[in-house]
Amino acid sequence: MFAGMALVVTWLGQASFRFDVGGRRLLVDPFFADHEARTYPPLSVDEHGAGIDWLFVTHGHIDHLDPFSLREVAARSPELTIVAPAPLAAMVREAAPGAAFTGVDRGDRIELPAAGSATVVPAVHGRTVADGYPDDPAFVGYVLELAGTSVYHAGDTIVTDTVVEALAPLRVDVALLPINGRTYYRERAGLVGNMGPRDAVALAAEAGASILVPVHWDLFEGNTEWPGRAVDAAVEAGAPLHVVTLRRGVPWAP
Amino acid sequence: MFAGMALVVTWLGQASFRFDVGGRRLLVDPFFADHEARTYPPLSVDEHGAGIDWLFVTHGHIDHLDPFSLREVAARSPELTIVAPAPLAAMVREAAPGAAFTGVDRGDRIELPAAGSATVVPAVHGRTVADGYPDDPAFVGYVLELAGTSVYHAGDTIVTDTVVEALAPLRVDVALLPINGRTYYRERAGLVGNMGPRDAVALAAEAGASILVPVHWDLFEGNTEWPGRAVDAAVEAGAPLHVVTLRRGVPWAP
Amino acid sequence: MFAGMALVVTWLGQASFRFDVGGRRLLVDPFFADHEARTYPPLSVDEHGAGIDWLFVTHGHIDHLDPFSLREVAARSPELTIVAPAPLAAMVREAAPGAAFTGVDRGDRIELPAAGSATVVPAVHGRTVADGYPDDPAFVGYVLELAGTSVYHAGDTIVTDTVVEALAPLRVDVALLPINGRTYYRERAGLVGNMGPRDAVALAAEAGASILVPVHWDLFEGNTEWPGRAVDAAVEAGAPLHVVTLRRGVPWAP
Repeated sequence: MFAGMALVVTWLGQASFRFDVGGRRLLVDPFFADHEARTYPPLSVDEHGAGIDWLFVTHGHIDHLDPFSLREVAARSPELTIVAPAPLAAMVREAAPGAAFTGVDRGDRIELPAAGSATVVPAVHGRTVADGYPDDPAFVGYVLELAGTSVYHAGDTIVTDTVVEALAPLRVDVALLPINGRTYYRERAGLVGNMGPRDAVALAAEAGASILVPVHWDLFEGNTEWPGRAVDAAVEAGAPLHVVTLRRGVPWAP
Repeated sequence: MFAGMALVVTWLGQASFRFDVGGRRLLVDPFFADHEARTYPPLSVDEHGAGIDWLFVTHGHIDHLDPFSLREVAARSPELTIVAPAPLAAMVREAAPGAAFTGVDRGDRIELPAAGSATVVPAVHGRTVADGYPDDPAFVGYVLELAGTSVYHAGDTIVTDTVVEALAPLRVDVALLPINGRTYYRERAGLVGNMGPRDAVALAAEAGASILVPVHWDLFEGNTEWPGRAVDAAVEAGAPLHVVTLRRGVPWAP
Repeated sequence: MFAGMALVVTWLGQASFRFDVGGRRLLVDPFFADHEARTYPPLSVDEHGAGIDWLFVTHGHIDHLDPFSLREVAARSPELTIVAPAPLAAMVREAAPGAAFTGVDRGDRIELPAAGSATVVPAVHGRTVADGYPDDPAFVGYVLELAGTSVYHAGDTIVTDTVVEALAPLRVDVALLPINGRTYYRERAGLVGNMGPRDAVALAAEAGASILVPVHWDLFEGNTEWPGRAVDAAVEAGAPLHVVTLRRGVPWAP
């Protein structure tokens, strides 16, 4: 069905991705807005945010659900459908009132005509540190089947049994996983944590991925990590996967 | 009072230290026993475990409370007093029935005649992963005032408000902190976690230490960390301290 | 011309690669022999060294020109042609007397029917440390055009003007570069050096590669490097390329 289609992946920094497949274009967690804590300027919404068919949102934090991005992408994308956890419906509709919206829950599977499908998986994060790391339906990841390649975008999440068990029945070829970690001092500064490099390597391996792409290590001052740590963790663990460290804005064919 | 006294610190690997000061000799968490998961052989108990005046134990895990070490050190140390959390009294007495024992609780302060003093501080760890990370009196750290230098041996602990608040009124010059971290996959393998490199740097800085010594990164296969990560974290954070990475068995004068 | 062909790259450790393209199979610098300094056992010559069409050799060191590998691959490969620098003709013929041999010089271009082509580029290394790092025709790299992808296998080399200038007119998509570096103490131990992570990143960027694969970091005890350093060097430099750290023996489609 997808024979002859090519998947092209373009990392836009942090957890933001553009996928081009068979004439369709998808975004996940676009963040084209300015922000005082950014370590680099946003990429061009004209270049990366136009003609989008589906825009996936993993949760409500600004670097994942950016109202500016939703509005600007919607303005450049007549065929746009925004896919987000159902509890974020009001946020999405306020940001992009004219766009089609699909609210999703963990376990849902969405068809993406002429592109593939998306399966919704849990993410364990939190609105604030005080929330702890609850099993909250407002936080999800997506397993995107695109041109025969299964790409797991984890959203923001630590690793828990919930995450591991949700992935167990799914095929994952490429795992896009956060590596910025979770520490006391970052939590004290209001930063809800994610898995770190070692857990990212082990989760990718357990999910059966052949490629790990470390993400969410670059955007916000005070919340960064070196991706080389995921590489060395993979070497140390003898993990049976390649680690691909992407350059922002440069297309990659997995 | 300590004029002319010099403090010499010898790291024995993992959390194990020997302190020589003014003719007195202290050990913390000696682990001279063989163990199948060791990545290097134990150091010599004859060289490092004889003539000990005080032997401090931070908690009951084998790499901190090693019955073989307690027995062998006691056999070589006629003046020995073993200091450990009070709930560990039975374990200590079984291992070294003839040695004097002082059971301590968080907040206690012990005089060490002709050497200095020890203040007991909380550590937040756990007997097993299933225990969570409770405030359990069986887990402590020590702030050792030796020859005018205040050395904080954290034991095994993550960073929590409890730990931070206990240190706030105390002076710390040298912080000996675990850096092996806490991850899902290590917890799933039964390894209770500790702070990682970034938290160790921030805790040392907040405690006012001028020197951070990363420890607990080397002993057990599958539970290691690279001390350079603490170094790099200190540089990245601009932490106002030196990071001293010790070589096992080689004396150091802080 | 190569429409429909897919290139599959399998790293066999150190500088050893297998390329599968359009029904043809190529090896570069296979090293299937045992060696006392190996940090991991050789991969299977039956799995990776059979049915080979072209076997490329970059220079005469054992981890690149391994007589055992040449003989065993030749025994499993009736169509084999061995391509090596012309000065190595005697070594190759002695190892695999029955195989076809093509001696090459820098600047040569070889057609690889039904696969692509190979252009020979200089490498600056040395038989021994005492030789210095001469411009010696016995050391080469190859730019392999395979299925429309241009892969630069550098062999063992430092970066010099000679190397940079030879690459300037060539297209490079994927750069396979050594990162183990060159140091006084390794040279004193008899180890001729290579470029390190920073030079590898900069050379890959200058050659216009979109992907850097760090190699030659894993095989010999005492001559290793952490590939994460190449990743972090690329991040630090803002190099416009992806860094792909391969797992030995696991196929990868660039």
